[in-house]
Amino acid sequence: MTDAPLPPGSTIGILGGGQLGRMMSAAASRLGLKTHIYNDTPDAPAFHVAAKTSVGAYDDLDAIAHFAGQVDVVTCEFENVPAAALEAAGAAAPVFPPVKSFEVAQERLAEKDFISGLGIAVAPYAGIDTLSDLKEATLRIQPPALLKTRRFGYDGKGQARIHTLCDAESAWESIGEAPAILEGLVDFERELSVVTVRGRDGAVRFYDVVENVHKDGILHTSTVPARIPPALEKEAKEIAGKIAEALGHVGIITVEMFQRGGAAPALAVNEIAPRVHNSGHWTQDACLVSQFENHVRAICGWPLGDVTRHSDAVMTNLIGSDAEGWRHYAAEPSTAVHLYGKAEARPGRKMGHINKISPKT
Amino acid sequence: MTDAPLPPGSTIGILGGGQLGRMMSAAASRLGLKTHIYNDTPDAPAFHVAAKTSVGAYDDLDAIAHFAGQVDVVTCEFENVPAAALEAAGAAAPVFPPVKSFEVAQERLAEKDFISGLGIAVAPYAGIDTLSDLKEATLRIQPPALLKTRRFGYDGKGQARIHTLCDAESAWESIGEAPAILEGLVDFERELSVVTVRGRDGAVRFYDVVENVHKDGILHTSTVPARIPPALEKEAKEIAGKIAEALGHVGIITVEMFQRGGAAPALAVNEIAPRVHNSGHWTQDACLVSQFENHVRAICGWPLGDVTRHSDAVMTNLIGSDAEGWRHYAAEPSTAVHLYGKAEARPGRKMGHINKISPKT
Repeated sequence: MTDAPLPPGSTIGILGGGQLGRMMSAAASRLGLKTHIYNDTPDAPAFHVAAKTSVGAYDDLDAIAHFAGQVDVVTCEFENVPAAALEAAGAAAPVFPPVKSFEVAQERLAEKDFISGLGIAVAPYAGIDTLSDLKEATLRIQPPALLKTRRFGYDGKGQARIHTLCDAESAWESIGEAPAILEGLVDFERELSVVTVRGRDGAVRFYDVVENVHKDGILHTSTVPARIPPALEKEAKEIAGKIAEALGHVGIITVEMFQRGGAAPALAVNEIAPRVHNSGHWTQDACLVSQFENHVRAICGWPLGDVTRHSDAVMTNLIGSDAEGWRHYAAEPSTAVHLYGKAEARPGRKMGHINKISPKT
Repeated sequence: MTDAPLPPGSTIGILGGGQLGRMMSAAASRLGLKTHIYNDTPDAPAFHVAAKTSVGAYDDLDAIAHFAGQVDVVTCEFENVPAAALEAAGAAAPVFPPVKSFEVAQERLAEKDFISGLGIAVAPYAGIDTLSDLKEATLRIQPPALLKTRRFGYDGKGQARIHTLCDAESAWESIGEAPAILEGLVDFERELSVVTVRGRDGAVRFYDVVENVHKDGILHTSTVPARIPPALEKEAKEIAGKIAEALGHVGIITVEMFQRGGAAPALAVNEIAPRVHNSGHWTQDACLVSQFENHVRAICGWPLGDVTRHSDAVMTNLIGSDAEGWRHYAAEPSTAVHLYGKAEARPGRKMGHINKISPKT
């Protein structure tokens, strides 16, 4: 692999054709780059803005190798790509982010071990393989606590809450008795995230720290600036930088954190996503270069783009039937509407988002 | 045709697959809309970000009718679409902007007659059909003057300059003795343009007035804000609004003007473009809703988007080999790079542009 940037006209292969791939593809077009999207179903939002498309299973390694053979670099829009798929793609084209970022982010126990191994605070946690592990850990980590499957959880799926020891058995059953992790609930003041980009040359840039509010386990709003003191903003970015560096990450990586309450505010990392992230959608309308374009720049070896925030912003997700209000949102001043081109508005499904901006405070 | 807006998931048919169609298509994707691009060659920049593509001649009326039959609305990214093509498309789907906007903008004499008929100042002009017309008009309109073909001119093509009466014959030959117009050169202080959007419901919004600098007959830079007093900014917008209204225009329309020098500044309209325009590219990075998205909103019957400028901006075109500097521009702070995905950088060819923004003054 050479260090020269991929010139305009090159093709980026994207594994995954959801809204993140769609917005990445539109961003790539600004830079004169083409995309080829690989998705397991033909009704993919990203297919509407791609130069080329392929439909195939993520475990069809021949199809993935064939796809990767037609592009100049491969990236992913979701973190749960099977390791074998990354390997098959990697034999034909450079893959960014690196495999290590996926390995760590795909497995909650490895993720916690990795982060705490860097000397970064996380919530108390324990690996759970049996019901007796769970009972023992529940005694040690004071409830309330969350039992989460180690793999393939997102948006609150594959999780169960434990309030007392009596909940252990039903919680263990509800997650299908899969390898899991028990996490103590952090008594937090606010949830933050740092959308970070790291280039192939190791350069790192941070978007301003975001303050997130979840509803029913799904991100509801992301607000910038976060209402935190400058020292905490700096610390949050240092933590994100340390993680990106230790992974040798290339592309966008998002680090979610809790700000603990109390007189001495402190941060604990919740989880990392080795990809463009819902809590970074505000960058589309409040920064010159969005997280999507900066991901593209990073994986293509381009200079990173300006992450300066020119406006304050509140991003609000449109979940399920929320998107039916598109006409109303489109008429609101200072509001940008983003819809993902999904045909069916199922409950809990991310259909779009709106970014409301205001002059920078 | 109904007045209800086209819902997300609808398909916009775009005649023309150049950079304007490309950026329009990316903007449509923000709103959950698909595009189907029709172009006369397969190597079209807009094809890289389209849900569907068709290759056909602009005078292949069957192909155009078939194309229009597959979409929910038809628009154009260039103004010189043959009238017969618009008619063929219009039989199958609503077409915006309306035919009248094209008729007026395609023929320089009709354009001048239309604008001056609204009581709006233009440069002195005369229709030219013969060499003797030209000689007579050259005597009446004091040179220097520009002889321009009435149809199909752009970026300084199909033009000849007349300094003295002696130039008439060679100028007439150089433009192929085609029906023409002679325009007196306005002694101007600056060139301005007003990028205007008009909705299907008649609502009109104006982006801030732009100050343009041309080089070798091609737009070089567009700067906002223009260095003009508020009263002139207001007058420029009123002129643009009057023209959009009189045409019953729907979509973006750009009105180019000269600001005459002297103690009492006054405006004279140079020409109109019934489409998204190079002098509006700065809106991509200095406004929440770009000219491309507002064109899409207008033709789809959506509420118009916010045209407020959040930053000052200078747009610089990358012509021909300028685009080879992409790596340099990509590393500049406060700079967004836009490349059009054209394979070959011919001299004079628009390859991309950069938008440099700064905090609003």
